[in-house]
Amino acid sequence: MTPSLPVLVLNGPNLNLLGQRQPEFYGRDTLDDVVSRCEAAAEKFGVVVEAKQSNHEGQLIDWVHEARGNVAGIVINPGGYSHTSVALRDALVTLDAPVVEVHISNIHSREDFRHHSYVSGIADAVICGLGIDGYSAAVEFVCIREGKN
Amino acid sequence: MTPSLPVLVLNGPNLNLLGQRQPEFYGRDTLDDVVSRCEAAAEKFGVVVEAKQSNHEGQLIDWVHEARGNVAGIVINPGGYSHTSVALRDALVTLDAPVVEVHISNIHSREDFRHHSYVSGIADAVICGLGIDGYSAAVEFVCIREGKN
Amino acid sequence: MTPSLPVLVLNGPNLNLLGQRQPEFYGRDTLDDVVSRCEAAAEKFGVVVEAKQSNHEGQLIDWVHEARGNVAGIVINPGGYSHTSVALRDALVTLDAPVVEVHISNIHSREDFRHHSYVSGIADAVICGLGIDGYSAAVEFVCIREGKN
Amino acid sequence: MTPSLPVLVLNGPNLNLLGQRQPEFYGRDTLDDVVSRCEAAAEKFGVVVEAKQSNHEGQLIDWVHEARGNVAGIVINPGGYSHTSVALRDALVTLDAPVVEVHISNIHSREDFRHHSYVSGIADAVICGLGIDGYSAAVEFVCIREGKN
Amino acid sequence: MTPSLPVLVLNGPNLNLLGQRQPEFYGRDTLDDVVSRCEAAAEKFGVVVEAKQSNHEGQLIDWVHEARGNVAGIVINPGGYSHTSVALRDALVTLDAPVVEVHISNIHSREDFRHHSYVSGIADAVICGLGIDGYSAAVEFVCIREGKN
Amino acid sequence: MTPSLPVLVLNGPNLNLLGQRQPEFYGRDTLDDVVSRCEAAAEKFGVVVEAKQSNHEGQLIDWVHEARGNVAGIVINPGGYSHTSVALRDALVTLDAPVVEVHISNIHSREDFRHHSYVSGIADAVICGLGIDGYSAAVEFVCIREGKN
Amino acid sequence: MTPSLPVLVLNGPNLNLLGQRQPEFYGRDTLDDVVSRCEAAAEKFGVVVEAKQSNHEGQLIDWVHEARGNVAGIVINPGGYSHTSVALRDALVTLDAPVVEVHISNIHSREDFRHHSYVSGIADAVICGLGIDGYSAAVEFVCIREGKN
Amino acid sequence: MTPSLPVLVLNGPNLNLLGQRQPEFYGRDTLDDVVSRCEAAAEKFGVVVEAKQSNHEGQLIDWVHEARGNVAGIVINPGGYSHTSVALRDALVTLDAPVVEVHISNIHSREDFRHHSYVSGIADAVICGLGIDGYSAAVEFVCIREGKN
Amino acid sequence: MTPSLPVLVLNGPNLNLLGQRQPEFYGRDTLDDVVSRCEAAAEKFGVVVEAKQSNHEGQLIDWVHEARGNVAGIVINPGGYSHTSVALRDALVTLDAPVVEVHISNIHSREDFRHHSYVSGIADAVICGLGIDGYSAAVEFVCIREGKN
Amino acid sequence: MTPSLPVLVLNGPNLNLLGQRQPEFYGRDTLDDVVSRCEAAAEKFGVVVEAKQSNHEGQLIDWVHEARGNVAGIVINPGGYSHTSVALRDALVTLDAPVVEVHISNIHSREDFRHHSYVSGIADAVICGLGIDGYSAAVEFVCIREGKN
Amino acid sequence: MTPSLPVLVLNGPNLNLLGQRQPEFYGRDTLDDVVSRCEAAAEKFGVVVEAKQSNHEGQLIDWVHEARGNVAGIVINPGGYSHTSVALRDALVTLDAPVVEVHISNIHSREDFRHHSYVSGIADAVICGLGIDGYSAAVEFVCIREGKN
Amino acid sequence: MTPSLPVLVLNGPNLNLLGQRQPEFYGRDTLDDVVSRCEAAAEKFGVVVEAKQSNHEGQLIDWVHEARGNVAGIVINPGGYSHTSVALRDALVTLDAPVVEVHISNIHSREDFRHHSYVSGIADAVICGLGIDGYSAAVEFVCIREGKN
Repeated sequence: MTPSLPVLVLNGPNLNLLGQRQPEFYGRDTLDDVVSRCEAAAEKFGVVVEAKQSNHEGQLIDWVHEARGNVAGIVINPGGYSHTSVALRDALVTLDAPVVEVHISNIHSREDFRHHSYVSGIADAVICGLGIDGYSAAVEFVCIREGKN
Repeated sequence: MTPSLPVLVLNGPNLNLLGQRQPEFYGRDTLDDVVSRCEAAAEKFGVVVEAKQSNHEGQLIDWVHEARGNVAGIVINPGGYSHTSVALRDALVTLDAPVVEVHISNIHSREDFRHHSYVSGIADAVICGLGIDGYSAAVEFVCIREGKN
Repeated sequence: MTPSLPVLVLNGPNLNLLGQRQPEFYGRDTLDDVVSRCEAAAEKFGVVVEAKQSNHEGQLIDWVHEARGNVAGIVINPGGYSHTSVALRDALVTLDAPVVEVHISNIHSREDFRHHSYVSGIADAVICGLGIDGYSAAVEFVCIREGKN
Repeated sequence: MTPSLPVLVLNGPNLNLLGQRQPEFYGRDTLDDVVSRCEAAAEKFGVVVEAKQSNHEGQLIDWVHEARGNVAGIVINPGGYSHTSVALRDALVTLDAPVVEVHISNIHSREDFRHHSYVSGIADAVICGLGIDGYSAAVEFVCIREGKN
Repeated sequence: MTPSLPVLVLNGPNLNLLGQRQPEFYGRDTLDDVVSRCEAAAEKFGVVVEAKQSNHEGQLIDWVHEARGNVAGIVINPGGYSHTSVALRDALVTLDAPVVEVHISNIHSREDFRHHSYVSGIADAVICGLGIDGYSAAVEFVCIREGKN
Repeated sequence: MTPSLPVLVLNGPNLNLLGQRQPEFYGRDTLDDVVSRCEAAAEKFGVVVEAKQSNHEGQLIDWVHEARGNVAGIVINPGGYSHTSVALRDALVTLDAPVVEVHISNIHSREDFRHHSYVSGIADAVICGLGIDGYSAAVEFVCIREGKN
Repeated sequence: MTPSLPVLVLNGPNLNLLGQRQPEFYGRDTLDDVVSRCEAAAEKFGVVVEAKQSNHEGQLIDWVHEARGNVAGIVINPGGYSHTSVALRDALVTLDAPVVEVHISNIHSREDFRHHSYVSGIADAVICGLGIDGYSAAVEFVCIREGKN
Repeated sequence: MTPSLPVLVLNGPNLNLLGQRQPEFYGRDTLDDVVSRCEAAAEKFGVVVEAKQSNHEGQLIDWVHEARGNVAGIVINPGGYSHTSVALRDALVTLDAPVVEVHISNIHSREDFRHHSYVSGIADAVICGLGIDGYSAAVEFVCIREGKN
Repeated sequence: MTPSLPVLVLNGPNLNLLGQRQPEFYGRDTLDDVVSRCEAAAEKFGVVVEAKQSNHEGQLIDWVHEARGNVAGIVINPGGYSHTSVALRDALVTLDAPVVEVHISNIHSREDFRHHSYVSGIADAVICGLGIDGYSAAVEFVCIREGKN
Repeated sequence: MTPSLPVLVLNGPNLNLLGQRQPEFYGRDTLDDVVSRCEAAAEKFGVVVEAKQSNHEGQLIDWVHEARGNVAGIVINPGGYSHTSVALRDALVTLDAPVVEVHISNIHSREDFRHHSYVSGIADAVICGLGIDGYSAAVEFVCIREGKN
Repeated sequence: MTPSLPVLVLNGPNLNLLGQRQPEFYGRDTLDDVVSRCEAAAEKFGVVVEAKQSNHEGQLIDWVHEARGNVAGIVINPGGYSHTSVALRDALVTLDAPVVEVHISNIHSREDFRHHSYVSGIADAVICGLGIDGYSAAVEFVCIREGKN
Repeated sequence: MTPSLPVLVLNGPNLNLLGQRQPEFYGRDTLDDVVSRCEAAAEKFGVVVEAKQSNHEGQLIDWVHEARGNVAGIVINPGGYSHTSVALRDALVTLDAPVVEVHISNIHSREDFRHHSYVSGIADAVICGLGIDGYSAAVEFVCIREGKN
């Protein structure tokens, strides 16, 4: 796998509302800000970012399939599907590239049902509570990891 | 929020089959009948009804997003997604308008896995077992609540 | 069973304090207001309402027994006994008339032990979170159901 | 229902990757091979096969609805949705035709969360671990069952 | 303790309806028939029977207290309180006389919550499913046990 | 089924030691005494008793099979197999004659794993804690039940 | 709230037997001794004690209602209702005055079902295992707390 | 291992009653019919079938031991021992030949305790709900698998 | 054991911060104030207090060992170790003197993992929610108990 | 009990295959080697060994019964019955002689269902993971214990 | 709080072995490398790092106490204490500065008991699986967060 | 690793009290006796014993670290830390030498929370209930195992 492959930044359900819903909680940065932040982080490594968002579980799976062999890694915030989607987990596990799961808030200090994520068990790394900085940290991790390979 | 906003009546998976599947159990009224009933209930308050149905979790979430700021309230029968969708819950919680969850049958006298709904925890009210009368009761509740605000 | 039978509105423990305790939560309507609301709803169907309240589990059971064959239906808010009384459930199941369980607040967004009700499993319908409007919706449901029989 | 109705072979999420992902585990046969195998099995009974695959839960439900009254039976591998989809179960239960659930690998020797399938409880039969031979065995079962009716 | 003390036959909630509710299930014998049966069984041992029934948990406890030192034993069908009353258990454990718990139906073939009884753990014996014959078997056991002491 | 069929009294593992092991707990009566007691009880109804004991689960199942159509009922103390044998349950459920489960001690006041019996769920009646009197009560129940049919 | 209000000492089921049942366990002090002890403790603060006992859950709730606004605080030993009564908890939570839960024995070293108390979650303080000294410690706590307000 | 080795068809407890017990549920085919069906299936591959049945767990284990090195594979319906026998699982895991578990009915739509099988975790494949056709499908699978080796 | 032995007041992890952390919750009294309060309570009985605090589980155990035979009793607030330390429980159980567990706040109205304490099961008494008055009540209890011996 | 009684070494299901199955895991020693090792250990104490193996739960129970009063102690490897046999536990508990449970492998590092043994709760000692040396250590323990008595 | 305060990097049990134990799993970087990495990250913000490691739970708590008011934030890898230490959690919650929990490996893909951390619930952020890069990401987060305040 | 390395015998919390606490239960042998016994056992193999005890979890971990590469094996009785220390488990797993866990009493016949040990899962062997003979058996096992390598 060559370093010229992009990093795929995949956002799941409700993350299109970022900056609009509960700003006192999630902050005022929007999904566009997230993408800009990721691009800045990747640029340092000469890597481009491809960013997609969907509220549809099946669409996210389709995109993971398309990414097979075509990305340097996936940074994914699966939103509510983290806790309920075996199918998304099964899709991600077919990738050869690293997978980093990101949550903006600290899911461990919220409701019990958010403490378990089907994705975490097969991800390479999990970051939560860093706010949108979690995305850039994840992108950097993917770039470093890929640079080493 | 002005009283001229419509009430969104959202029906989830398999409710398009209403009146056709297990009529001895769910009755012979169709989804059209449900909508008519809701319209009649809303009309008493000078409110219109917008009705949508989908078997796709992501589609339901998209519609909830579109409803933000544009509806007087949501009357939702999430069907099977009640018991499995954190993502739908997360979408509904971003609304400022009241949310009423409706089930045609009494889910508490059915299988154990139907006794818990992710939506109930964040809904304003929950109605089950009233048959399709549950929809009109829910619509009335939204209209009354909105009239008071 | 003839339509001239009354609807029994049964309130369990602590509901005599309605309007006095935690008004910011339960509202300022009293139990008398609940009864008036029920009477208004029943009157449209030419039905009368019989209303009783007790903090005693055994008294509630006695009243359910007396109601056998003498009511068009029971609208019951079992309060705290919802979650602990098998005996009350066993009494209600001996009725031929419909049973509607009502809770003023949405019990699903409260403590875990309030999420299960022994009554729900044998009730015809369950309404929670509609405030005291839940009672009138329940009374109407009983009247309609009885009118059809 | 006449024997001239087709058997619907429905594959859920990630099964489009069959033969490509983890070949040491799932084998090198592709989804096309599965379909050919099913067609060969059905042909012995003079029955045709209709085969569909989707990563979208809602799409699978839509197809089940369309199949109502139009198929001799459904052979379904629900993939990851087996373990999480009440909605798909609710769709399948509305069918009059037999439903056979198939898994290529033995899900009982994998992670705990794969040991329970919402579909199994309402399927007529469940086959797992036979590899892609499970599909043809299922198709045969449907044909035999239908031939008897 | 002398053999001239009576056997107390205590019936809990809803057992006053015996013979009236679900006769296909509980049979057509009434509570009076139960008492007659018990008296016949006790008579063989020259023992009298004292029979009481209440739907009130507190009343049952009061009666158990009054029985302390005044009965040869208690035959109790705690009905729904079997499964929920620590207080009744605590009252019964203060007795020196034998306690036999009786259930008319086989509670182990009914709902899960009926499989555990707080009384069973401190009773001397438990009989269920013998119909009203269970009462007379229990009375005989108390008489025999007392005769031996 | 005619009244001239015998009652089968079946004892499971370790009950051959009755009277020898822990006499302070199980009493000093032996298995022979149990059989005599059963015979006396059955004789009043003109019924004979057939008594068997084995420590082998398979042997008990074989005997249940042989009893099909040849006994008026089974009185069974499954001993330790009560808590672990689905196979024995499955055998007993194939009988048309009544099944009464007997335990000498009150299993509900012993270790937790003794509180559940696979046999109880399909037995007609369950008696525990009556000592060996439980057997004769069970035999009588079978004779009475058969006499009524 | 003025300091001249009495402290209500409320005792639940079976506590009328104090000093009579299991004296080796609960000691030989009677309920009258408990009350005297409480009066002595309160007297130091110029406060009077009102003491009531009932085996009836509903009666205890009624008394809690009557106490609203009329007591400096409640010292309650809910006995067996501690572990089963949501209704009593709901009554106590409506009070503005402090609530102290007292158990004579250490409930944490007894059966598992005694380790959880519905009252503890909403009490201000919980004392167990101090014997009847727990009552006076509780009364003192109420008096001190009230003196500060 | 040569293809001339037989397939061992092993049936566990109560399967000797096939065709006699609950025919409306298990069908009217007998164990002999099962064997004939298996022989027909094996014959197509030039393979013979060895069929045994026992109600004794130990006997089944003995037979599995004898089969080591002497069979092309085992088709086993462990009946009730599926859910309780670690010993049988341990015996089967010592085989080099494939193991297919068969259940006539769909165990996933029956009681909860039938949803887990100790054998499934170490079997190569599991078939349930196909009726006695499940046996022949299993035999075919063993023959095909062996043919490939 | 003579009354001249001191009472050991043992405080576990984080209690050195008393008065500094979350004063709105734990009050403004410091650990020195706790000790003074204990000394005043003990002085009434002519008993001295020895007070120690450590954040180290092992240190607390060492101190309990040293206390064996040298103290009239232990008043212990095990802080966070209450919920996790079997070793501390094992140390305390080797004492002949009484042990009273104290918690400043009501642990039953906090997180679930605080509801169970390994120490409670072997303590003589448990006091929680009385604030720092709980310590003096505990010291008094030890003095009274020792005075009686 | 005299020291001239033999030590019974009892091996349960599948242990007849020792040395043949999974030698990389269980080693290459056979059951004969185990017996030799036990004899050597016992010989040092002038004690003989009696060794038996069966795959039949009932047979093992029969042998335990025969051992009552005739052995110095039992060294038992219950194999798979460890985890499932209440009946075997009940048999062993009737012995006056010491019982040592032995497992060749460390059952605590294997599947979850192997972590609990019904025998452990009533054994005098449990040894696992020592390989076949566990047997000789157990035999020595029995001989020493008996020598002391 | 001024930006000149250091960031405390706290490592718990067994992390002193970093680079020595299981290098194929944890990598070959040592704890010194971790510190250097943290220093480099902090230096970009003009912040110094203070690094400590201990295998003693109490020592870690002492250090957290000393850090109160003296650090810009804590980056902590609690090692095995993550899963068992309420006391450490209680210490960390008394800090005003941000807390970031770091794990080198992805704890969610390891044993079940590593999936829950008492620290996560009160941390501001959690990073796992990034290898030792997780530390520098955490240090950066603390610096950025502090810079904003 | 050469046979001249010592065996480390590590004792955890409260084991310094051996012979003093509950002698009727743990016997009258002291920790010195344990060490002597171990030395005698090791001497037969020309191996020396190093013995340490601490009540501090961190100290035990430090000692395990020091033992890396310097011992022939560890015989450890982790006392109460068995059930609660992930950190100790993590330390032990870094050793190349064998680890044998010893408990003097049979922990499986004591409280439920003693049935699980974090150490057992990674130990080579576990011995419990042999009294202090368990230590010498463990030392012998280590010596034999090392002799073979």
